[in-house]
Amino acid sequence: MNTPRARAMLFMGRRSHQSHAPHKHSPPAVANDLVISTVDENSGIAMLTMNRPPANSLSLEMNEALCYSLKTVEANPKIQSVILSSTNPKIFSAGLDITELVAPDNDRLPRFWNSLQQVYIDLYGSRLATVAAIQGHAPAAGCFLAMSCDYRVMSEGDTNNDIKKKHVPTIGLNETQLGIAAPPWMGQLLVRTIGFRQAELALALGTLFPPEQALSIGLVDDIVPHQQVESGDHKLVDLLPSQIKDQAQNSLLQKAYTQAQIYAKIPPQARVASKMVTREEHIFRMIAKRDEDTQHFCGFVTQKAVQKNLTAYVEALKNKSAKK
Amino acid sequence: MNTPRARAMLFMGRRSHQSHAPHKHSPPAVANDLVISTVDENSGIAMLTMNRPPANSLSLEMNEALCYSLKTVEANPKIQSVILSSTNPKIFSAGLDITELVAPDNDRLPRFWNSLQQVYIDLYGSRLATVAAIQGHAPAAGCFLAMSCDYRVMSEGDTNNDIKKKHVPTIGLNETQLGIAAPPWMGQLLVRTIGFRQAELALALGTLFPPEQALSIGLVDDIVPHQQVESGDHKLVDLLPSQIKDQAQNSLLQKAYTQAQIYAKIPPQARVASKMVTREEHIFRMIAKRDEDTQHFCGFVTQKAVQKNLTAYVEALKNKSAKK
Amino acid sequence: MNTPRARAMLFMGRRSHQSHAPHKHSPPAVANDLVISTVDENSGIAMLTMNRPPANSLSLEMNEALCYSLKTVEANPKIQSVILSSTNPKIFSAGLDITELVAPDNDRLPRFWNSLQQVYIDLYGSRLATVAAIQGHAPAAGCFLAMSCDYRVMSEGDTNNDIKKKHVPTIGLNETQLGIAAPPWMGQLLVRTIGFRQAELALALGTLFPPEQALSIGLVDDIVPHQQVESGDHKLVDLLPSQIKDQAQNSLLQKAYTQAQIYAKIPPQARVASKMVTREEHIFRMIAKRDEDTQHFCGFVTQKAVQKNLTAYVEALKNKSAKK
Repeated sequence: MNTPRARAMLFMGRRSHQSHAPHKHSPPAVANDLVISTVDENSGIAMLTMNRPPANSLSLEMNEALCYSLKTVEANPKIQSVILSSTNPKIFSAGLDITELVAPDNDRLPRFWNSLQQVYIDLYGSRLATVAAIQGHAPAAGCFLAMSCDYRVMSEGDTNNDIKKKHVPTIGLNETQLGIAAPPWMGQLLVRTIGFRQAELALALGTLFPPEQALSIGLVDDIVPHQQVESGDHKLVDLLPSQIKDQAQNSLLQKAYTQAQIYAKIPPQARVASKMVTREEHIFRMIAKRDEDTQHFCGFVTQKAVQKNLTAYVEALKNKSAKK
Repeated sequence: MNTPRARAMLFMGRRSHQSHAPHKHSPPAVANDLVISTVDENSGIAMLTMNRPPANSLSLEMNEALCYSLKTVEANPKIQSVILSSTNPKIFSAGLDITELVAPDNDRLPRFWNSLQQVYIDLYGSRLATVAAIQGHAPAAGCFLAMSCDYRVMSEGDTNNDIKKKHVPTIGLNETQLGIAAPPWMGQLLVRTIGFRQAELALALGTLFPPEQALSIGLVDDIVPHQQVESGDHKLVDLLPSQIKDQAQNSLLQKAYTQAQIYAKIPPQARVASKMVTREEHIFRMIAKRDEDTQHFCGFVTQKAVQKNLTAYVEALKNKSAKK
Repeated sequence: MNTPRARAMLFMGRRSHQSHAPHKHSPPAVANDLVISTVDENSGIAMLTMNRPPANSLSLEMNEALCYSLKTVEANPKIQSVILSSTNPKIFSAGLDITELVAPDNDRLPRFWNSLQQVYIDLYGSRLATVAAIQGHAPAAGCFLAMSCDYRVMSEGDTNNDIKKKHVPTIGLNETQLGIAAPPWMGQLLVRTIGFRQAELALALGTLFPPEQALSIGLVDDIVPHQQVESGDHKLVDLLPSQIKDQAQNSLLQKAYTQAQIYAKIPPQARVASKMVTREEHIFRMIAKRDEDTQHFCGFVTQKAVQKNLTAYVEALKNKSAKK
């Protein structure tokens, strides 16, 4: 079986500041990369580290950088698995960059939405085994990124600290809380991940799940305590640029790496074919409705009531950050 | 996103004896209402109380009364959530009125079936958040009514009494036990609610689940002990006509009310859009097959073998009730 | 409701050495039967015992024998339930006969695949209630056979013995481990049985589940300790030919028989109609894609890389068996 025809329809968009061999880069170059690639041909495992401060929110450029760096790794025949992680120890990805939605540009808005659809098509249908290492919060489209992978490992967060420093990450499609709704293909991805009933409930209420709950409903596949452990049989963390390495929670990355290794041992042709058994029809379904979906989204988001909700939300965020 | 196009196809049928402000009615008038509406604009929550003694079974007129009273509440822009309950402390709804099926009238039978389909379309696709307060048994189409809501709270029943007075409600699509089968759209609603495998098993065997089991397979979302508690922060129960109020199990209604409040706080536009993400295609699918479904049902139920099963069942019910 | 139209398309294939009343046969005749039928009209329950040593692997002839013996039992109006079991105490079925796949004959390969598709259509859509008594391993298409039934009971295996004699059966679609992938209709049957997320994970990794895990994810419905118990209220085991009877693990068969009785008590017309509510569309979907599926399979399996994997696997099996 071939990898999905969807991939022939690849929309590359603009090039990001993509790093092919980040550990050889000087620090400033690394800091400019929206997505940092680390490739370990020996193990057949690569890592894509999201690096768009402060919150890895998904702008048009960030979506394009994700697709571009994924394609670059896929083009390397020695790589079978990829880990998706974050440089931010407390945030995996905060979801859509809300500034793309507030008072949007008529030309840019559909291009932005298209780039998000492309992330779904490319990541959900990747020939690579994809493992999300969820070190921090993954609300809304951050949860979508994780759900588009083959496997999800989540940190339990740092609960040993005093209350002020305590950090428990959460994950979920919480769009309704912001007055918007996840698009059908994203909502249906939640249905496939946690089942119809739990998904319907979580979608309506915009529920964000802490790690243990996320595990119990199947939104993540594994959780790991927050701690720095001796690195195991892998050297992937050692390959990371030093600024990232210092922040990495290596118990999480090690678990993600172990799972990536398990996938890498399956004959790739069979692994990809089995992935297509469950995913192909959903990718084709989205492609068939892609334009309709874009029109619907643009129409929805530009409604006055929705703009009002979003503007209020952005103001609240600004005030919150000004107080800090 | 608009509420589903399905709603434009609303089939109103005959008016029931519908009560707009039941608590102002004199007792006899209330007793004649098939469905009693209680509206609390302050909280944005309404209640529809099924009131067709002895068992809230679904006749043509009862189905029409349900649709009519739901539409009336939906037309009030101040209302966001509705609770579906029963005046009978031991029965939510016994399902289809079996007298509609035995030796049926050729003209009335398809109209009856159409009215049941309409309850599904209207209730499952309602713009309101819908909470079922299941105080007693909910077999067959009684279970269907509950599954068409957004959330299900069930009473654990009265288990403290001696054996004779003990009452443990059950819920499930038990049609095969009566020699008939739930229609595809009803069976598939069970699949969505509890998952394919559990649904297939329960459909084949016609299983009725007591509250704890119903909770563990996800057929209900919450269960509450049977007791009269001090009413909480809501006044809904106080609005009920006194005859109903005296029979109401207010621990159940309070829980249903709390959930209705949670839904009422979600921005309505987003809540409805998220509901349509999972439900729209299923409502459209039923509408597309509506006539075929009616023909199939009428053909099935008028078969000699099926009529024989149903007649035997009605006789057994009569004998049982005569003995009491 | 009629049994599915699918059944009108029945493909009988060649007759197997089918036994109509096996307990009257002399031992050599029984030994030649690929599938042994035992019929108990009193209880309405039959048993089909797979008998293709050493591992009940599915060759073209075995598939045809399964369809033929199922059809013969279905033609008996006194029978409502059928148990599918194995003469091998340690193997339910090892899946596809791999010799059908290695250096295949161009004419026979598509006929072989067609016969497997027919087993799915006939068994998954049977008018009979079907109970799998899984006494030993059920990998790959062995798992598929079990999933095509209405109910699955699995033996916990013989864990009391010393390590050498210990036997814990496993079940699962482990195709990717062999470098091939289960066909879409088989993968989607796993999705329906254990849910999307668990199925996707198990398909990619080719996971084989021991009994307790299989129960906890819903891949089987019940597990029974390995022991010889006094036979209960049934006489089915007593009807078995003595060679089979001596090997049968009757605690398992008794449990399967009890479940078969439960199904046999449901009015058959309603039971079949309820089965079609969930299965009909999936059977039709497979029939519509049948030729495409055959072409795809033949193209996939004759690829050089796949042939290489399969040849290596067969060599490994030979060496393993030579060492014993």
